[in-house]
Amino acid sequence: MKAIDQFRAKPSLKLRDKDAKADAKPDQDALDKVLDDISDLQEMLYAERKRKLLIVLQGTDTSGKDGTVRHLFSSINPMGLHATGFRAPTEIEAAHDFLWRIHREVPKAGEIGVFNRSHYEDVLITRVVGMITPAECKRRYAQIRDFERMLAESGTTIVKFFLHISKDEQRERLQARVDDPHKHWKFDPEDLKQRELWKDYQKAYSDAITATNADHAPWYVIPADSKRYRNEAVARVLLETLRGMRLDWPPPDKRLHKLKVR
Amino acid sequence: MKAIDQFRAKPSLKLRDKDAKADAKPDQDALDKVLDDISDLQEMLYAERKRKLLIVLQGTDTSGKDGTVRHLFSSINPMGLHATGFRAPTEIEAAHDFLWRIHREVPKAGEIGVFNRSHYEDVLITRVVGMITPAECKRRYAQIRDFERMLAESGTTIVKFFLHISKDEQRERLQARVDDPHKHWKFDPEDLKQRELWKDYQKAYSDAITATNADHAPWYVIPADSKRYRNEAVARVLLETLRGMRLDWPPPDKRLHKLKVR
Repeated sequence: MKAIDQFRAKPSLKLRDKDAKADAKPDQDALDKVLDDISDLQEMLYAERKRKLLIVLQGTDTSGKDGTVRHLFSSINPMGLHATGFRAPTEIEAAHDFLWRIHREVPKAGEIGVFNRSHYEDVLITRVVGMITPAECKRRYAQIRDFERMLAESGTTIVKFFLHISKDEQRERLQARVDDPHKHWKFDPEDLKQRELWKDYQKAYSDAITATNADHAPWYVIPADSKRYRNEAVARVLLETLRGMRLDWPPPDKRLHKLKVR
Repeated sequence: MKAIDQFRAKPSLKLRDKDAKADAKPDQDALDKVLDDISDLQEMLYAERKRKLLIVLQGTDTSGKDGTVRHLFSSINPMGLHATGFRAPTEIEAAHDFLWRIHREVPKAGEIGVFNRSHYEDVLITRVVGMITPAECKRRYAQIRDFERMLAESGTTIVKFFLHISKDEQRERLQARVDDPHKHWKFDPEDLKQRELWKDYQKAYSDAITATNADHAPWYVIPADSKRYRNEAVARVLLETLRGMRLDWPPPDKRLHKLKVR
């Protein structure tokens, strides 16, 4: 079964902790092969300098967004990769509409852009803590749909990943950060308050994914309690997506035929 | 001998083709170890979120700037890496001073920034083809010195690499691009015109390096006819530079002492 079918978010998604687990065994050799193939296709995308690929990573704290970037995208030529982490908006960002800072960072022709968190934060945390009304949240879903359609129509292939971990797995990962002083910089006591709102967040994610799950900007829900399974699943979806773009090397330059460099 | 001493540009540099060769044997295991160490130190830089590292790569066409980025920086966490390639200025870029587009791309706190070509193009090609007067070129050397000093005083460690290949080696690499249709996209017939100006370029590089070779923004001249030797030399300079920053993990957060996550 293709990964893009296996992991595609179902209509009316309802996230359940038990779906964060996966029983299939990951296979490091297979993953390495997939990463090599991704790297080759990325070179063609870069050489073509026409289309763009935008990868959105979302998930609760400790769901593995950073780890996914580190493991999967470090095999890609950094010249063709633009990774952006979105944190709480700065004063100037907050003074604009919520898509303003996002639009500035979308990938350009030939590039792969990776969003570590994204415009989806603006229908997640903002909704859960009550910074926006339900009506505003609905308007934003529609604005996101319009924005992503425009990007797609302008040559951007979009893939969106929700890294799905269970509440138990999050406890273990947060505890591991507490127990290792070298990891304290990754830990914000605020994360514990978010954790108390677990159910609200799962509902907010389910709704946002359902409202914005388009064929030109599909959501993939990745069981992420196992890091290796997560990496393999994301990599397979990426490879199939790149293959679907039918990339090829730019045509030979006839001016160079039999040219001798002196 | 330390690499930062071995490769540091001499005062009054004069580039000679024979210095592009290196007879030492590269050692892949040693290089892998150096890359691992660089990756570890990069994590500390990223965790610290205070200082910045700026790496400037310059060199003639085919000198290996792209290959260096691909081989050395793909082991680094993409979240902490910002690689920028500078091509011919766009209309809006050319409407500003030459440092404007550069300043926008300098690394922020915790980041490693890589410039594939840079503000130095504005004292190289512009000078060789006569777009600026010698007096303007001298003013720009001084402006670059001031700009880089400001960056250094603002917490940026700067290292600048000149990838030094010989004219013979360039011929072979250009011919290889001509002979492989998959590489035609990398080839611009304009490159052959630049090649005819080889001596002028070598003089322009020598002068620019000599004029801007400061202890807070040192130039390293890397023999680059051998790709593996080049990679190893650049990696060693980088590792010694990162070690010189005396990075460490941020201090533990006392609020987390014995905390139990529920």
